[in-house]
Amino acid sequence: MNSFYLSSIHHDGSKRYVTSPSGINLQLGDEVTIRLRAAKGAPIERILLRTCPDGEQFFSEMQIDDTQESPVCNWWQANLRSTMPVTAYRFLLFTTDGIWWYNGSGLHRHVPTDAEDFRLLADYAAPDWVHDSVFYQIFPDRFSDGDPSNNVKQGEFEYQGVKSQARKWGESQSSWPEAMVEFYGGDLTGVEQRLDYLTDLGVNAIYFNPIFTALSNHRYDVVDYFNVDPHLGGDSALISLRQRTKERGMRFILDIVPNHSGVGHPWFKSAIEDSNSPTAEYFNFHSHPDEYESWLGVRSLPKLNYRSQNLRELVYAGANSIFRYWLKEPFAADGWRVDVANMLARHGKDQLESEVWTGIRRAVKEENPSAYLLGENFFDSSSQLQGDHLDASMNYFGFSNPIGFWLNRFEVNQHATPHNVRSSVPWPTQALVDSWQASRASIPWQIARQQFNLLGSHDTPRILNILDQDPARNRLAVAFLLTYVGVPCIYYGDEIGMSGKDGLEARNCMIWDSTQWNIDLRIFYQTLIKLRRTSPALIDGGFQTLLIEKNVLAYMRDSDDEQIIVIGNRGPEEYPAGVLPVDQGAIPDGRVFQELFSKQASIVVNGNLPLPSLPAGVQIWRSAA
Amino acid sequence: MNSFYLSSIHHDGSKRYVTSPSGINLQLGDEVTIRLRAAKGAPIERILLRTCPDGEQFFSEMQIDDTQESPVCNWWQANLRSTMPVTAYRFLLFTTDGIWWYNGSGLHRHVPTDAEDFRLLADYAAPDWVHDSVFYQIFPDRFSDGDPSNNVKQGEFEYQGVKSQARKWGESQSSWPEAMVEFYGGDLTGVEQRLDYLTDLGVNAIYFNPIFTALSNHRYDVVDYFNVDPHLGGDSALISLRQRTKERGMRFILDIVPNHSGVGHPWFKSAIEDSNSPTAEYFNFHSHPDEYESWLGVRSLPKLNYRSQNLRELVYAGANSIFRYWLKEPFAADGWRVDVANMLARHGKDQLESEVWTGIRRAVKEENPSAYLLGENFFDSSSQLQGDHLDASMNYFGFSNPIGFWLNRFEVNQHATPHNVRSSVPWPTQALVDSWQASRASIPWQIARQQFNLLGSHDTPRILNILDQDPARNRLAVAFLLTYVGVPCIYYGDEIGMSGKDGLEARNCMIWDSTQWNIDLRIFYQTLIKLRRTSPALIDGGFQTLLIEKNVLAYMRDSDDEQIIVIGNRGPEEYPAGVLPVDQGAIPDGRVFQELFSKQASIVVNGNLPLPSLPAGVQIWRSAA
Repeated sequence: MNSFYLSSIHHDGSKRYVTSPSGINLQLGDEVTIRLRAAKGAPIERILLRTCPDGEQFFSEMQIDDTQESPVCNWWQANLRSTMPVTAYRFLLFTTDGIWWYNGSGLHRHVPTDAEDFRLLADYAAPDWVHDSVFYQIFPDRFSDGDPSNNVKQGEFEYQGVKSQARKWGESQSSWPEAMVEFYGGDLTGVEQRLDYLTDLGVNAIYFNPIFTALSNHRYDVVDYFNVDPHLGGDSALISLRQRTKERGMRFILDIVPNHSGVGHPWFKSAIEDSNSPTAEYFNFHSHPDEYESWLGVRSLPKLNYRSQNLRELVYAGANSIFRYWLKEPFAADGWRVDVANMLARHGKDQLESEVWTGIRRAVKEENPSAYLLGENFFDSSSQLQGDHLDASMNYFGFSNPIGFWLNRFEVNQHATPHNVRSSVPWPTQALVDSWQASRASIPWQIARQQFNLLGSHDTPRILNILDQDPARNRLAVAFLLTYVGVPCIYYGDEIGMSGKDGLEARNCMIWDSTQWNIDLRIFYQTLIKLRRTSPALIDGGFQTLLIEKNVLAYMRDSDDEQIIVIGNRGPEEYPAGVLPVDQGAIPDGRVFQELFSKQASIVVNGNLPLPSLPAGVQIWRSAA
Repeated sequence: MNSFYLSSIHHDGSKRYVTSPSGINLQLGDEVTIRLRAAKGAPIERILLRTCPDGEQFFSEMQIDDTQESPVCNWWQANLRSTMPVTAYRFLLFTTDGIWWYNGSGLHRHVPTDAEDFRLLADYAAPDWVHDSVFYQIFPDRFSDGDPSNNVKQGEFEYQGVKSQARKWGESQSSWPEAMVEFYGGDLTGVEQRLDYLTDLGVNAIYFNPIFTALSNHRYDVVDYFNVDPHLGGDSALISLRQRTKERGMRFILDIVPNHSGVGHPWFKSAIEDSNSPTAEYFNFHSHPDEYESWLGVRSLPKLNYRSQNLRELVYAGANSIFRYWLKEPFAADGWRVDVANMLARHGKDQLESEVWTGIRRAVKEENPSAYLLGENFFDSSSQLQGDHLDASMNYFGFSNPIGFWLNRFEVNQHATPHNVRSSVPWPTQALVDSWQASRASIPWQIARQQFNLLGSHDTPRILNILDQDPARNRLAVAFLLTYVGVPCIYYGDEIGMSGKDGLEARNCMIWDSTQWNIDLRIFYQTLIKLRRTSPALIDGGFQTLLIEKNVLAYMRDSDDEQIIVIGNRGPEEYPAGVLPVDQGAIPDGRVFQELFSKQASIVVNGNLPLPSLPAGVQIWRSAA
């Protein structure tokens, strides 16, 4: 038996391992059943479930569930009462070779802190609809021009000393700062006209970059939080879009910037003009009017000051706050993506993020308990993901960055980073697995499965560029996106093979001439999107790593009725035909799998799944019903 | 060079590695210098210091300090401005074999979360005096009877249906519940009379178990928070003791129980009698008067309810609160040990600990910024140790439990634990090292060096019993206590070899007949206490593990001017004579060390310190001046 059995020990927060009388939406006081599986014959003498109600350690004996007749594994179980908003737990295993602690980061000989305990949230208002959603991110000026009459005109206004430019669809952009006021005419009417395209692709939710009135084309420099920019069709276009998307069962979320306003915003203009203005307290003036706090020192984006209770009322707390307004009819947005969520209400000695986020969450959930509250955070956002602040963050940290590091190279590109923070030494497969796991282990599973996974956005190079245009690695990245734990989001145009070497080029106009599309790639996306939206194992299954080799990674998503195995090879060498051990995943002999793309079948024998050779790229094996 | 260089990479929060213009008491806005050392010749190409001011990642280039002429190591350094109350940082190393992240838990290939970042506290009110203190814990009824006239008399009162018993010094205790009201006459006057004993032992601070008026001998069932129990000599005895200890430069801290009162407390009596009583809201009645929340279901200890603002005023917030009262003259206690700190203000859906602890800290530090605020917590208390709540916790979790697991066996003894939670399979040395490190990594160094380390207390078996009376392992445990990072506390009587198989026997009367003392052990303690109070490396040095073998552990404490190397063998086999690699600790050839007990000398050659054989036990090597 050796130490094989260790890799067969598995628990995560998915419904196969945590069963609750209230389903996924656990109520305070509910008793849930916690289940852990381990290979039959594993030298495990005893397992205790360890919790810490109100701060005091408590152990429960787990028992093997005799009603489960599995030829390959035992299911250990114990009941657990959810008495607190967050109940943390881990396992203590007694084996013939000593004790092990098992938590979200795996098996440990040492006594771990509670930081990576498994966690259950009770009375948590979950955005249930995201669980089988696939998002599509749209940068409004660049997706589709549905109404040329509302386009920004050449020289219509001036911003930061640069005159607005009206450009033709598909023309190259200039560089900064001119690029900021080049407009291509995309609008919400254009999106409405392309809904068939989205439905055909298979996505059922949209994340819109900002649509409120602003002066630049990215519109993060808001001048009016209460109106859709007329150049995007105004409020009426959003109301119409809401109607059409509703008919299709399609959701959308909007982008909000509570961290800063634009210098053009009346709040700031008034504050600059008069230090006694009521809005002066919304900003941090070090020396009025010239020196004020701004986002990373960008003077056109003055940072908002949440010591101001009046500002809090306006932004989220008040009955007609910005956060509430757009969640109400007739707009009824399905949630918010919050820009710069990592920095909000944080400034030197004033680190007010906890109270401000608690307030934002309360306001949002009062309007719509199933609204999706998503924050931008390029870094470890686990402190915001414990159930009382965000529902999810844009998962660069715990998902896409590690993919880029593994599939190409370690590299950090961001504001204010020193030159050339990169390494060309191949990053180990174990590091990818550990990075993903560290991130999952730091947050409750209920949040992990809602994390907003993406391969790129308007702020990054496109995934094809991150991967130096390698088509096989690109397919592998897309397969990770659609099969990993979390909610996938596709950046507009990635599905047809668009390129963009940086955050500016990534905002190029969507290509509507289908002769320029990578048709095979689009079919690949469609196939995976369909799988993601219909597979129980992907919608609500567990996650277990099965194989870690120099250039190859395999993992399993599992529900009671289905297993999906993803095996990826970053290349360049072909991974030879052989067998994948699946007994650690409690998959019995005789189970039949079919590969998603080739339709080839394979059957488990002696705990192994025979696999054909795998060139750089990905195979996805789904168990037969 | 191989991968040896990895073990030479070191940073911690001690002053050798973090230099600040304000010394250890960093001010907000200070610029500190962060230093990391690595072996000369290590294939490190570049090191970046990674911080996250206001939530946004930021990198600084580190440079090799050319002014440091070390034959064995390079010192990399960068400046860091402390702009927030807590500044977290870690390192990104570029080497010829790829990138490594280095944080409080060591080197990582994967991208870690921020949880184990190094951390700096600014504007943190530190109890500086604890840094060179050695504490001595006294259970007042059992240490010394200075005034027999105030002793509890036979049958003087009844508690929980049991009559008080006056026992002779040294007689055996009964079992529960009778044991709870057996009194031996120890009092504060007795402590005052024994101050010479404490000075001779070398300790300079006392932690007193509760001294406020109560009915049981442990006095955690307080009935009057504002008076010293007359049986201990009353307020006047404490005032006198304060005078005498002050003359010796000796500190003391008191024990407070804000989690619950005794059923005999007037607050509770009044609440029971009348549900409209003003004090009824201080408790959680599920059904008045019979069902109320209590500490772990012990009905004699009703839990206090911190939803009550009036209770908060009385306990800590008000000008004459309990927490404030005893810190003021004429008592002027030097701090508080807070009972059941882990559970305070936590109850099901109401997890109010953060606001209550913030309030307690504010009150305590307003009275005395250098008061030591210490909490009882048997478990991971890192959430309370980030600078805004406690100054320290009783370090069972991060220090003594792992020692017991390594030196004898893994075992959990506590309230409400299932039977026989233990394992006799030897616990790996790596697990001890990792447990210690996980705990250190979870808190700022400024707190880690204040952690209240202990080998046992009135709540546990004595250390000799935990170690099955093994004298060599006992010496090793004591050596860890006096040389590890943190503030040591000796439980009264451990120094003379007293036994006690459980928390009851651990409260046996102090033995004053010196013919019954283990004299060698007491000298061993004295030697180490003296070392701890005078060695720069132990008072403010770093910590680095040097050797991990099956039964042997070696670590170094280092300051600029001194290194202390502790090497422990848990036995039973003798560890043969050989060499200890110390080049990883940047100790150059030619440095002379002397062993503390044998006075034997040894000199570093070719990066190694030659060592004589080591039977089970400990050697402590101190560099010569």
